[in-house]
Amino acid sequence: MNPRPAIILLSGGLDSAVTAAIARERGFALHALSFHYGQRHAIEEQAARRVAASLGIRRHLFQHMDLRAFGGSALTDDIAVPKHDRVADLPSGIPITYVPARNTIFLAFALGFAEVVGAADIFIGVNAVDYSGYPDCRPEFLSMFEALAAVATRAGLEGRAPRIHAPLLQMTKAQIVREGARLGVHFGLTHSCYDPNERGQACGRCDSCLLRREGFRQAGVADPAAYQTT
Amino acid sequence: MNPRPAIILLSGGLDSAVTAAIARERGFALHALSFHYGQRHAIEEQAARRVAASLGIRRHLFQHMDLRAFGGSALTDDIAVPKHDRVADLPSGIPITYVPARNTIFLAFALGFAEVVGAADIFIGVNAVDYSGYPDCRPEFLSMFEALAAVATRAGLEGRAPRIHAPLLQMTKAQIVREGARLGVHFGLTHSCYDPNERGQACGRCDSCLLRREGFRQAGVADPAAYQTT
Repeated sequence: MNPRPAIILLSGGLDSAVTAAIARERGFALHALSFHYGQRHAIEEQAARRVAASLGIRRHLFQHMDLRAFGGSALTDDIAVPKHDRVADLPSGIPITYVPARNTIFLAFALGFAEVVGAADIFIGVNAVDYSGYPDCRPEFLSMFEALAAVATRAGLEGRAPRIHAPLLQMTKAQIVREGARLGVHFGLTHSCYDPNERGQACGRCDSCLLRREGFRQAGVADPAAYQTT
Repeated sequence: MNPRPAIILLSGGLDSAVTAAIARERGFALHALSFHYGQRHAIEEQAARRVAASLGIRRHLFQHMDLRAFGGSALTDDIAVPKHDRVADLPSGIPITYVPARNTIFLAFALGFAEVVGAADIFIGVNAVDYSGYPDCRPEFLSMFEALAAVATRAGLEGRAPRIHAPLLQMTKAQIVREGARLGVHFGLTHSCYDPNERGQACGRCDSCLLRREGFRQAGVADPAAYQTT
């Protein structure tokens, strides 16, 4: 019997790589979907391609879109990415790196891709612990999207609406690192930094770098990412 | 007092033009969003620009995406667009022109745009009468998307989730034509055909052309669209 197909949203970051490894362990044939949305760097695309190759992904599609046109986010605009020295310094609330409706847009594409591929499962690496400030990283959002999927497509009308899986949802970053280590994820292929330099080295001080480094430290696992020496 | 902003999804077709005119009549300042998703013809883009200009739209954004990569639709693939002689000949069920998750994707972008613009209203020209076969043209779908919007974004968390307006939802095509005539819509600027020739002339026999022609006929209004002479 052929393995069942599943869609994995793959950014090239740590979380989506571990999510893909979990889906693979569950026996799915993975169809990956990656996005460019006016990020500052093509580094994420390279990371997504490397991670996909390392995980034996069946098919890998890229969608290019211009969320910069909307404006309003440090990830898509020329707003400076905030830097901090410690995780404890991260502000609470919705971070400036929030991109309006990003996960709604990503899951909407995944829904279309799932219908064409015949996939009844979509995996997304969102996390409600470290990214509690993002509205679209919460369980309420994911449940509601699943309810939308049931009425939005042909598959939904036929009772085959895809389920949304977010296996990292309630994990800490340290737990994610341990899970990735157990599954043999090549951490060195992943890219997390919001503000890398021109050589692709991570800044080490943006929200994403701080959470990643702290996660590796707490997990007792070496982080092979290349950080800028400051 | 400045008029409240609203997002209008504008395809350049008859329905979205009439929807925009309705939103304008209700006093909104319109921010339009149009999509290219691997359609066969750039004619829709030109029509969307013309319609936007004729309606005094405040700002007009285009998003380009490649839904062809997914496959599975006569609107994005090299599958022939079906032709018929009469509306009565149109098959029931989901048409071959269905694009998986299209309206979910469009509304997801509209949601992001609305948040950045500060719009509490999104207008979409879907119609459940003539397009009853499309799952994402039904009231159940629109209600569920509105529920999703309430949990998906910062605006939602702050109690300012946008409402989704689909004023044409229960209208027949003839009623849409009459409403457009009342509002002074320049029907000649709109484009409906799924399969125009290289000069931009409508085929007259695809689902969209048949429904449009029948609508104008029933409404007793002349259709200024250019049809191929066969």
